Amino acid sequence: MIQAGIIGASGYTGSELVRLLEMHPEVEIAAITSESHAGKKFSDLHPAYTDLVDHTLITSAQVKDVELDVVFLALPHGVSMRFVEQFQERKIPIIDLSGDFRLSSPAVYEQWYKKDHSYPKGFENAVYGLPELNKAAISEAQLVANPGCYPTTCALALLPLAEEGKLKGQRIIIDAKSGVTGAGVKPKVTTHFANVNDNFKAYGLKNHRHTVEIEETLNSSSSSKLKVQFTPHLLPIDRGILATAYTTSEVISDDELQEMYHATYYNHPFVRVVESAPEIKDVRGSNYCNVFPTYDERTGNIIVISVIDNLMKGAAGQAVQNMNLMLGFEETAGLKAFPLKP
Amino acid sequence: MIQAGIIGASGYTGSELVRLLEMHPEVEIAAITSESHAGKKFSDLHPAYTDLVDHTLITSAQVKDVELDVVFLALPHGVSMRFVEQFQERKIPIIDLSGDFRLSSPAVYEQWYKKDHSYPKGFENAVYGLPELNKAAISEAQLVANPGCYPTTCALALLPLAEEGKLKGQRIIIDAKSGVTGAGVKPKVTTHFANVNDNFKAYGLKNHRHTVEIEETLNSSSSSKLKVQFTPHLLPIDRGILATAYTTSEVISDDELQEMYHATYYNHPFVRVVESAPEIKDVRGSNYCNVFPTYDERTGNIIVISVIDNLMKGAAGQAVQNMNLMLGFEETAGLKAFPLKP
Amino acid sequence: MIQAGIIGASGYTGSELVRLLEMHPEVEIAAITSESHAGKKFSDLHPAYTDLVDHTLITSAQVKDVELDVVFLALPHGVSMRFVEQFQERKIPIIDLSGDFRLSSPAVYEQWYKKDHSYPKGFENAVYGLPELNKAAISEAQLVANPGCYPTTCALALLPLAEEGKLKGQRIIIDAKSGVTGAGVKPKVTTHFANVNDNFKAYGLKNHRHTVEIEETLNSSSSSKLKVQFTPHLLPIDRGILATAYTTSEVISDDELQEMYHATYYNHPFVRVVESAPEIKDVRGSNYCNVFPTYDERTGNIIVISVIDNLMKGAAGQAVQNMNLMLGFEETAGLKAFPLKP
Amino acid sequence: MIQAGIIGASGYTGSELVRLLEMHPEVEIAAITSESHAGKKFSDLHPAYTDLVDHTLITSAQVKDVELDVVFLALPHGVSMRFVEQFQERKIPIIDLSGDFRLSSPAVYEQWYKKDHSYPKGFENAVYGLPELNKAAISEAQLVANPGCYPTTCALALLPLAEEGKLKGQRIIIDAKSGVTGAGVKPKVTTHFANVNDNFKAYGLKNHRHTVEIEETLNSSSSSKLKVQFTPHLLPIDRGILATAYTTSEVISDDELQEMYHATYYNHPFVRVVESAPEIKDVRGSNYCNVFPTYDERTGNIIVISVIDNLMKGAAGQAVQNMNLMLGFEETAGLKAFPLKP
Repeated sequence: MIQAGIIGASGYTGSELVRLLEMHPEVEIAAITSESHAGKKFSDLHPAYTDLVDHTLITSAQVKDVELDVVFLALPHGVSMRFVEQFQERKIPIIDLSGDFRLSSPAVYEQWYKKDHSYPKGFENAVYGLPELNKAAISEAQLVANPGCYPTTCALALLPLAEEGKLKGQRIIIDAKSGVTGAGVKPKVTTHFANVNDNFKAYGLKNHRHTVEIEETLNSSSSSKLKVQFTPHLLPIDRGILATAYTTSEVISDDELQEMYHATYYNHPFVRVVESAPEIKDVRGSNYCNVFPTYDERTGNIIVISVIDNLMKGAAGQAVQNMNLMLGFEETAGLKAFPLKP
Repeated sequence: MIQAGIIGASGYTGSELVRLLEMHPEVEIAAITSESHAGKKFSDLHPAYTDLVDHTLITSAQVKDVELDVVFLALPHGVSMRFVEQFQERKIPIIDLSGDFRLSSPAVYEQWYKKDHSYPKGFENAVYGLPELNKAAISEAQLVANPGCYPTTCALALLPLAEEGKLKGQRIIIDAKSGVTGAGVKPKVTTHFANVNDNFKAYGLKNHRHTVEIEETLNSSSSSKLKVQFTPHLLPIDRGILATAYTTSEVISDDELQEMYHATYYNHPFVRVVESAPEIKDVRGSNYCNVFPTYDERTGNIIVISVIDNLMKGAAGQAVQNMNLMLGFEETAGLKAFPLKP
Repeated sequence: MIQAGIIGASGYTGSELVRLLEMHPEVEIAAITSESHAGKKFSDLHPAYTDLVDHTLITSAQVKDVELDVVFLALPHGVSMRFVEQFQERKIPIIDLSGDFRLSSPAVYEQWYKKDHSYPKGFENAVYGLPELNKAAISEAQLVANPGCYPTTCALALLPLAEEGKLKGQRIIIDAKSGVTGAGVKPKVTTHFANVNDNFKAYGLKNHRHTVEIEETLNSSSSSKLKVQFTPHLLPIDRGILATAYTTSEVISDDELQEMYHATYYNHPFVRVVESAPEIKDVRGSNYCNVFPTYDERTGNIIVISVIDNLMKGAAGQAVQNMNLMLGFEETAGLKAFPLKP
Repeated sequence: MIQAGIIGASGYTGSELVRLLEMHPEVEIAAITSESHAGKKFSDLHPAYTDLVDHTLITSAQVKDVELDVVFLALPHGVSMRFVEQFQERKIPIIDLSGDFRLSSPAVYEQWYKKDHSYPKGFENAVYGLPELNKAAISEAQLVANPGCYPTTCALALLPLAEEGKLKGQRIIIDAKSGVTGAGVKPKVTTHFANVNDNFKAYGLKNHRHTVEIEETLNSSSSSKLKVQFTPHLLPIDRGILATAYTTSEVISDDELQEMYHATYYNHPFVRVVESAPEIKDVRGSNYCNVFPTYDERTGNIIVISVIDNLMKGAAGQAVQNMNLMLGFEETAGLKAFPLKP
């Protein structure tokens, strides 16, 4: 059994990692940290795990004394970057769930995240951890930048078109909708129940950070200079993202689209190319992404709809998938849970 | 007090009309019909109105003996058309809430609704009842076709651009999201609680009937041949529609957009041009439509977001607004209720 | 038109009062205060009211210069008590929506609210503002303590039994369930969307402050020493409370219960005694309370179910009802809105 | 691997059984039936399982030719009873998820279910499948009647008190609240989204069938003649039941209660006795039942709160737990999934 450490356990990503790793056939959790709750039991923070998870939280400083085979950074943007170097020095494979090393350079980071980057060196070896794009590189990586939840959904919707060169010069619009857990565990006005329930709104218009992550991912596989209009919205649900992507195209049949998508995702166990519009509950609690492409002859648009569980394929599930690839386990190990529906 | 009849009272539109007309300062309800429930009290069907509404339901045949100054047809598509002629003969102003007379011709109707139209003559005098487009014509109309819920939301989002000629030759994408009451009162698999709650999906891709209604409305005010990519989605909420509309544009500032939108809606009491992204609860239970236009310099797209309550401005509220115009009342009479938020 | 002041406008009660008073035929709002937001427009805090409510917020100190005919204190417990004296000196009728003057004495207050009371003198003249219990006294009152949301629901469920002496010596259990707005406008862990949605739990077991308010109300009308087991729960909805009350009884028919309840509520326009189990949406957005009593011969228990909208009959609506009584308006003035359903 | 058959796959219980058995380390699904959908793929009915479950549905008649080691009847009440005899003749262990064999006799069944029982002989050998009550008997049983969802929640709340004789002569009130999946997969007025969302109500007052099942279970372990006042309510959530149970008691400390509950559930891996009020999401998607007992000195009442996932411990999960006991597997085999929270 390999020994895993989780840095940051108070958020949704941290607790979801614990849930997955406790079930993983090859992994044992050796350390879970929380600066503000060190000394408490993990299940004091997350009472759903009472009697199931027995770990006591430690500080990140105490992790120095724990032998680890892999470490997950489940920390906010801007905090993760402080932890990378120490684990690199210890030669421990790192999966960083923050946005700190996802982009192509510190300059792009600073432009979109509006803050300085304190560890630019990390970009040199960081691999963008979308297995459907970078499986080989991930397998050899020592530092994997786990993709954002929206970028995962949007990239998986459009990768086959990008790889076929179908997006070049096209105007791309992605209208995305996410459940509330994407906004984190901390109570805010925007996540107050009465502000979300029976309600719906757009946010982050024109400047959401995930825009550039989506653009860089699509451009890396199509060597073009795409710009994406990305508009996120807040759904009154817990988990899940649905993206509706639009691009123009020459005439193409739905059969050809299905073939193209199946060709891209043939070897990728977590992408299901489906034949009708998917819904969020089709993937809830699972690591699957369902993708449905279709062409509208009347308008000349391709529409692609994709869904994921933002805490699974959009965060902790994908992080475990990356770990599996990095450590040579079966890609689906510990991730075989079916969707929980209804 | 004028005497109003409501044909069809078992659905959401019918009950919402009763709620509004009972509060209306100039109107008395003279008849409410239901073929399947005639003889019962209205409040037996809608227990929320117990002790508040005392009407007994009658059949539509019995309406022949009731003096009416105005009649509302709150009936399904394909049924309304059977009732128009009799009220025209009685010279009673008609507001039809179905889709039967919204489109430009029986031919277009038959193409999109996939059924024959049994009263093509009705199209001759029907006026499309969007007051923000057709106020003068509505004031003189004897038959008003009350717009669909999605078309109201989408048209109000784009009318100012259409009138300024800004949509000509543009690709238009409208990604719309509706609450479940839009699907009617009848239990179906798609409206079963466990299929909607904590869930989200697109439906009616490429062929929803409201597509052509939106196109005709925008084309009528811009004399062009626009095509619209319209994609509706089902929100896990009761009431409300939010539409996110995208079109390309030359450089235009947000100030110019605000000015353009205010110019169009200056005299229209139910459209509020707002300065940040609106949310559905901002209009819940009211007849308001909030519209927010913005331009993204990075991509060259205009994004417009609009919200309404689908049972109010999207159905019964707009019908009462049309009645007010047809009968010469103040446009806002009986429609002054503020949004119910939270 | 009489001039009304609202002290405290950032919470749900304050905004609901504004919504109701703006619609009230006899009232004009003369002042709305907020210490933290003074200088801003009311609609900046509550964007749903953009273009509808034009008031600018002032500090409570500035209210000294405003002529008022009535004042509403929409403040937290412990804060209201600081404002009562000044308005009493100005001879302005006061409706206090906090819990500061609801109980029988400062001693009881201090026992259940675990804090000192800074204005014990207020108890001398305060009238408990449940019109169905105290209509005459309210009409003459200068200081009305507007009841809590749970106590309103629970008292209205059991008053007829209390008045008939049916509760004496009985064990009373009230299992109550409330929507989230009852917990206030401020984001907390307990009102974070993902902690409430698709979830349900009890809270405040054995020691919720409303327990004593319910007991005192029932005892005042039955001159007994009842104790109530009151257990509140948190529903994943915005508005509304449902209470299920249980007490033992000698054999009594449902007809007798209906008669007894109708007798008590005959002259009370906002209580509807109904003949089947009510649901929360039957009263949403309205000032009504629906009550349904029934007897189970098999077990010897009476079960009573009651529902209200906690922001209306449970707070702002009842406050306006009290104002109507205090100022001699029709009891239902400004409160005729029907329930918003669906 | 043992071969399992599932009779009835269109409902929630059937699909949940498939989800669990596909993950079970010792079981292979050999047959899934559906009369109305035979010939289709299971995943056509339940698209969330596309590419994950490859079974084609067969008729129940075709099951005669399939070798089975265990069979689950996931059928409505009144239908299950027709299938028991044939599997008894084939000596195949049966787990019946309907209510057909849960009660003590055909007479009691007929009284509460208001229909004749066509296979009274089944009662002779049926064992009530609540492992926390009947583990030994279940291990030897050939026909297990899987408990109802409410009775499981309520019995687990009160069993320790019943076994200690603490319920004798007491008045017991159970106020229970269930998610909508408890009402089945078929669309009805009562499960229509707009009738449930943002709403709450009681139903089945005084005569819900689960009442007698709860009473018989508690009486069997306390050899008394308890009557229970059982009031179910409908929560606007998918999954989960919370029961709040009330009974009077002599003075007893919370520590004594904890001890008593731990003593009863010591050897039962799926009951977690907790130290604060549990919430439904603490068990969502898992087979756990959380139970919290407490005593109120002020009133002399014991309050016990318990929560389960109605499709897991309340149906399919408990059925698999029973199968494990009947076939000699580890009790928790295939049921180790942690709660899915948030």
